[in-house]
Parts: sequence; C-alpha cells; structure tokens
Amino acid sequence: MPEKVLILHRFPKSQMVRISQSFELMDAAGKKPNEVFSAEELGSVRAVLAAGGQKLGGDVMALLPKLGAIVCYGTGYDGVDLKAAAARKIAVGNSPGANASSVADMALALTLASVRRILVADGFIRDGSWAASKPSPLMRPQLGMGGRKVGIYGMGEIGRKIASRVAAFESEVGYFSRSRYDLPYRYLDSLEALADWCSVLIIAVRAGPETNHLVNADILRRLGADGHVVNIARGSVIDQAALIGALKEKTIAGAGLDVFAKEPQAPDELTALPNVVLAPHVGGHTLEGHLAMQDCVMANLNAFFAGKPLPYEVKAG
Amino acid sequence: MPEKVLILHRFPKSQMVRISQSFELMDAAGKKPNEVFSAEELGSVRAVLAAGGQKLGGDVMALLPKLGAIVCYGTGYDGVDLKAAAARKIAVGNSPGANASSVADMALALTLASVRRILVADGFIRDGSWAASKPSPLMRPQLGMGGRKVGIYGMGEIGRKIASRVAAFESEVGYFSRSRYDLPYRYLDSLEALADWCSVLIIAVRAGPETNHLVNADILRRLGADGHVVNIARGSVIDQAALIGALKEKTIAGAGLDVFAKEPQAPDELTALPNVVLAPHVGGHTLEGHLAMQDCVMANLNAFFAGKPLPYEVKAG
Repeated sequence: MPEKVLILHRFPKSQMVRISQSFELMDAAGKKPNEVFSAEELGSVRAVLAAGGQKLGGDVMALLPKLGAIVCYGTGYDGVDLKAAAARKIAVGNSPGANASSVADMALALTLASVRRILVADGFIRDGSWAASKPSPLMRPQLGMGGRKVGIYGMGEIGRKIASRVAAFESEVGYFSRSRYDLPYRYLDSLEALADWCSVLIIAVRAGPETNHLVNADILRRLGADGHVVNIARGSVIDQAALIGALKEKTIAGAGLDVFAKEPQAPDELTALPNVVLAPHVGGHTLEGHLAMQDCVMANLNAFFAGKPLPYEVKAG
Repeated sequence: MPEKVLILHRFPKSQMVRISQSFELMDAAGKKPNEVFSAEELGSVRAVLAAGGQKLGGDVMALLPKLGAIVCYGTGYDGVDLKAAAARKIAVGNSPGANASSVADMALALTLASVRRILVADGFIRDGSWAASKPSPLMRPQLGMGGRKVGIYGMGEIGRKIASRVAAFESEVGYFSRSRYDLPYRYLDSLEALADWCSVLIIAVRAGPETNHLVNADILRRLGADGHVVNIARGSVIDQAALIGALKEKTIAGAGLDVFAKEPQAPDELTALPNVVLAPHVGGHTLEGHLAMQDCVMANLNAFFAGKPLPYEVKAG
C-alpha cells in the first residue's frame, strides 16, 4: 500500500506525475481540506505537500491529527506557520536550491529585459514604427550592463548564482545581507548603502515579516533616474504602491517583476506601465527546475515515511 | 581650420556631438553625396564617416577624388567595397570591439527572453489572463538554460564575450568558426555539427557574401523542437523566410533577432509570431558602447589627418 500524501495547494497535474507513482495523492487542490475530505480520511494523513509561499496555518494543521511532515514543493516556506508546526513537532521540508539556477536565470532575464528595454524594442518593431522610420523610443542611448553597479539584496544560494551571472556581464557586483561572506563581491552594510551604491537592485532575499516592504520609496529613490529594480524573491519585500509611483514618476527607469504583492494579480496601474517587465512567478518553472524540486520532495517524503529525519528540513528561526 | 569629414549615412545628431567638436562635418544623411553637395565641395573631402553595414561602393568613392579614409562607426564594415577601396589605396577603419560587450549583452538578453518566454509571460499578465486564472501558455515547463547546450557561430571578440556570459548560466558552450582557438569551449568543425550538438544557436559571425543564408532550414531543423536561434550579427546570415517557416511550423521553439534581412524592416509574417523577440538593431546601442565607438572614430580620423596609419584599420581578405 502506498502511503497517503495530502496535496494542500493547487499544482498542475504534470508536476505530480512522478510523485503519484510512489504515493497515494489526496488532492485538496487549494480548498480547505475538510471541504473535500471527511474527518476520517483526514485522520489518517501523516504528510502534506504544500506550495511554500501559500498560507498554511495552525488551523489547517489542526484538521490533521496525525500530521508529521509538511513538505514544500520549492524553495520557499514563508507561508508555513513554523511555530505552529514546531509546537506539534511537525517536520517542515523544502527543496533548497533545487530551482536556484532557474530563478537566478530569470533574475538575469528580467534585468537584461529591463536595462536593454526589450519590450519597448519589440513593440517598436511589431507596431510598424521601425519600418515607417518613426522616431525610436530607444533613440537616446542608456547605460548598459558594462557601466553598471549591480546590487544584490540577499546572498543565499539564489543570490550567489545571480552574482556569478551578473559578474560575467562586466558589471560591478555588490550585496547586502544579514551576514558578510567570503565572496569576491563588495559588501554594503545596509540596504540603504547598497541602494546608494548601485543602479540596478536585484532582490533575492528570503522573505518574511522582517523584510516586509523594506524596498520602499526611499530605497527606490536612491537607485537614481537610471535605476532598475528586479524582484524574483517575494512580492512582499517591495512596497508595490511605492514602486508603481517610482515607475510612473520616472524616479527610476524600469523594473522586472516575477513576484507580486498579491498573486495571481498585478494591479492595472502596473500593467499600464511601459517601463516594467512582468512574469507570473515562473522563476523556478523550468523542466530541470521541476525535476530537481521533485527530487527533493520525494527524498523528504521517503525519509519521513521510513522514520528518518527529512534530508531537506527547514529549521525554524 | 578643422578638417572636413563627409557623413555618408544617417546618424542621430547625439552620436555626432563629440566628433563635430573636432571636425567640420558635411552631412549627406544617407543621400548620395552629389545630391547634397557640389562637385567642388566633394572634391576637397579626404575622409568619410560611414555606417559599416550600409552600402558604400566604388561609385560613391568615385565622387570623392581625394578620398583617403573610410571610417566606419561601429564594428561592421560589410557594406564597404574593400576591393574598390584598396584599388584606390583608401584606408578603411572601424571600431573593433568597441561595442562588443553591449552586443554580447544583447545576445544574452534575447537568448534569455526567448528561452524563458518573457514576452509571453508579460502578455499573459498584461491582458488580465493571470488574474482571471486562465490557462497559462507557460504551463508546460520547458528546458531552461541549465540543461542546455548553447552553440556560438563565430568566435571573434563578440563571440568570446557571448561565450563567457553563457558559461555563467551553467550551460555547456560550444562553437564553430573558421579557426579553432585555445578556449575552454567545445569546438565543432562545421555549422551542421554545431547545430546537431546544441539547442540554442547564437549567431556572432562576421557577415559577408560567404556567410549569406548559411543558417537555413536544414540548420534550424537540426536545433530540434526545443531549439532557439539568436542573431545579433547581420540579417543576411539567416535565411529569413526559412526562419519564419520554422517558427510557424514550430520546427524550433523560438528566436531572438536584433538584425534583419532588410533594415529597417521586419516582415508582417515575422511580427505576427508570438515565439520571436524582436529588436531594431540596437545591440551596440548603449551609452558606454557609443562612447567607445566614438573613441575609435576619433582616433582613426586624428591619425589619418596627421598622416599616420589608422590605429583601427580593416585589412581586406
């Protein structure tokens, strides 16, 4: 008999194929589990699969008396109430670094698209303006990557992979994070200092209540009029209203966003702007990224059901 | 008295500011010079400034009896009839490598935009589909950069800068060029072999009659259904009709183009496609790129008028 695993959040079926070959999946598909399954069915559930960025509080855990493991598909676990889990000795696992390369690639895709104005360039051709020799919105050359100082906020696995990619573009790389590491990049000792130093700010920090809206109007202003901000971490790190204001007023030149304050949603004020590149939280969404995340999910589930510690366990605090 | 320099092709005024401070510029602005200036005026012209990609044949040189130097703004000189120039001992200069970094950055911007489907992602959010939870065109994950073999056609200064950038994305890098170099990348001994080996083909070869339409339907087919082609060299290297066919039939997955068969023009068949990213030949168009190109132009002109060899001289053959 395969072990049962309750899927709490919505995942495309294709992402569950490998996992379903080893486990009996009960799919709540984003609904509260007690709206889909009986108390008896939930009573036997020992492990759940979750999207780490989505809310998973003590109320849901309370529906699952035998719950022993919360396994997050992906790197994030900011939606999980770690204290509530710890209080019940529920292990929490994630897929650390599994999609770090894909997310770092997306950070660069958005950085280059914003700095080199790819959407504007593409639109200028598609609407026939180029062929008609209309004045180009790209006429006035702007600073490319070579003349840039690029600041990375957060220097975990994703931040490091972003840094090594950015360095290949002959940009200067600096970073701010809680800790200073032995890395060949300039360390700035506050987010303010980083924003003063750089003109491109890439957000790669692990999100939590303490990072909420830290990238605010003041930080954006420090980037300067040729500044760009890129976020592949969590929407909560940026004050989204302040960002919209900065893009509208041209306090900064552009932005690239894979994450938003409230997903799946980007406000009309944002989608109306020409100087922003938008992506629907697909940073880690590559074939190789998913395979690696599934490897971590399977390893965590197999270990748990074998009575062993999770190989990829999240430690609270 | 500043020396006279005839500007043969159209350049934005902003790009001529520095040059006009040292020379008296006669601007033909893309017209045949004898339509703008008298034979007497043209009789005193010893140096011309040209866009290297645009035609400059013996007929134009014949209008300028004292012509001694053709100075190209940019890396390219494929529009210049080098034999006609050599027959008259007219020196030809360019700006080698001046904008190589900017062009290489654009190659990566287009590669990442194509592989990670940035236009599709952005459109899915802007048209409200994401917020309405409509089926995502990005649902089925595709191979990102990490699992890719990336082939570079041409290994001059731009090709090398592309290679070092691609390598930072944890992709395997291979190349084909006339010569094999001592470089840490796999060498394939034909364009066919390169296309068989890689799934992303980046064209960085110096264009000329011998490279015309070398990237044809056969080469594109060899890239495979998850293949992408990126061109930042010259439009003539790709058989553009074959490329449109391959994108329509999904013989390959996508393309990123900064250059086109006939500029400024992209056929309606191309601009109607969702799986291509288009840019209006702006690869080298950055602040730092223009400053470096202007440095080369000034150095070539100053040397010529001082009776010295051009520091950045193009050698025929």
